[in-house]
Amino acid sequence: MQTIEFWYDFASPYSWMAAERIEALAGAAGVAVQWRPFLIGPILRRRPDNPSPLQNPTPAQRTYRRRDVERLCARYDLPLRWPTSYPRNGLLGARLARAVAPEQRPTLSRALFRANFVEDREISDATVIADVLAARGFDAEALLAAALADDNKRGLMADVDEAMAYGIFGAPSLRVGDELFWGNDRLELAIAWAQQPWL
Amino acid sequence: MQTIEFWYDFASPYSWMAAERIEALAGAAGVAVQWRPFLIGPILRRRPDNPSPLQNPTPAQRTYRRRDVERLCARYDLPLRWPTSYPRNGLLGARLARAVAPEQRPTLSRALFRANFVEDREISDATVIADVLAARGFDAEALLAAALADDNKRGLMADVDEAMAYGIFGAPSLRVGDELFWGNDRLELAIAWAQQPWL
Repeated sequence: MQTIEFWYDFASPYSWMAAERIEALAGAAGVAVQWRPFLIGPILRRRPDNPSPLQNPTPAQRTYRRRDVERLCARYDLPLRWPTSYPRNGLLGARLARAVAPEQRPTLSRALFRANFVEDREISDATVIADVLAARGFDAEALLAAALADDNKRGLMADVDEAMAYGIFGAPSLRVGDELFWGNDRLELAIAWAQQPWL
Repeated sequence: MQTIEFWYDFASPYSWMAAERIEALAGAAGVAVQWRPFLIGPILRRRPDNPSPLQNPTPAQRTYRRRDVERLCARYDLPLRWPTSYPRNGLLGARLARAVAPEQRPTLSRALFRANFVEDREISDATVIADVLAARGFDAEALLAAALADDNKRGLMADVDEAMAYGIFGAPSLRVGDELFWGNDRLELAIAWAQQPWL
């Protein structure tokens, strides 16, 4: 079975859409998914001209992005409620998603995405997060401790370096072998790529 | 029948993909297409920070874009041959596409796109263009004269202003009523939007 690496950032609404869609699409295609939480911010900050797509430079683009996200969520039947604080810092979320066992990562990640984009909760706040985790049956205290352990923090920064070494410059990104795909709107193409028999 | 405005720039490979796909998709959906040649360059130059997506700022993005275009062309069965000069200046092409009758615009536009992205010809050169036009049965001399007439030149600049007033910031863009869609990868969504019965 081919594997697709799914690189996602909790601040990104397009990452959320992909997180909600990837398992059904990959499952139907017989493709395994490896969930790779990361942060796009540190990569963007290392760019020479430092533009952040999360802080769109022109009003036209800001207006457009909002509408695009709304239309796509409607199409995917996702109950978007715009975060009153946007973009929210995804650092704690990425640390948590990295700290849990891989088989728990999809459930935990969708819970965090929905806390941000459906419930409009402050996912950078450990108290809020503890509540979200407990409601989903996770051991919040143990999980937060694991998330904030030094080796996990350092591991996440190494993951960001790994993403950058792969040429990743946006979130979500999908990786199949050496082939890189950027954006929720390339998810189907990435899965089709992973199905190629010669891989 | 609903109408979709298709705003495209001859320098843009994603505009080319949409130009090759839009008529079949819109025809099947019962949606009329209004072809609107324009230039994205003057809009990007008016941005405060002046980034041009055609001159991607980082090597990672440049590499990615090239691969993305190649994969999508393969998927759409388009015989891409990378222009040895990229991006080519689309000004003369836009003037020509604007100068012909609307019913000739799709054929002429696809001929110019293919000259750029399949035949690797310099579409900013009037001699090359005259050859492309003549091969397609157009009256090249008359058409070039119409393209270079002052009122057509001024009309194109007014079209660019119109695009900017609509909030257009990239090419291709699609417009259905007041709803704006950006990118070849939003073509299906824009056509579905135009099919909504309440429009």
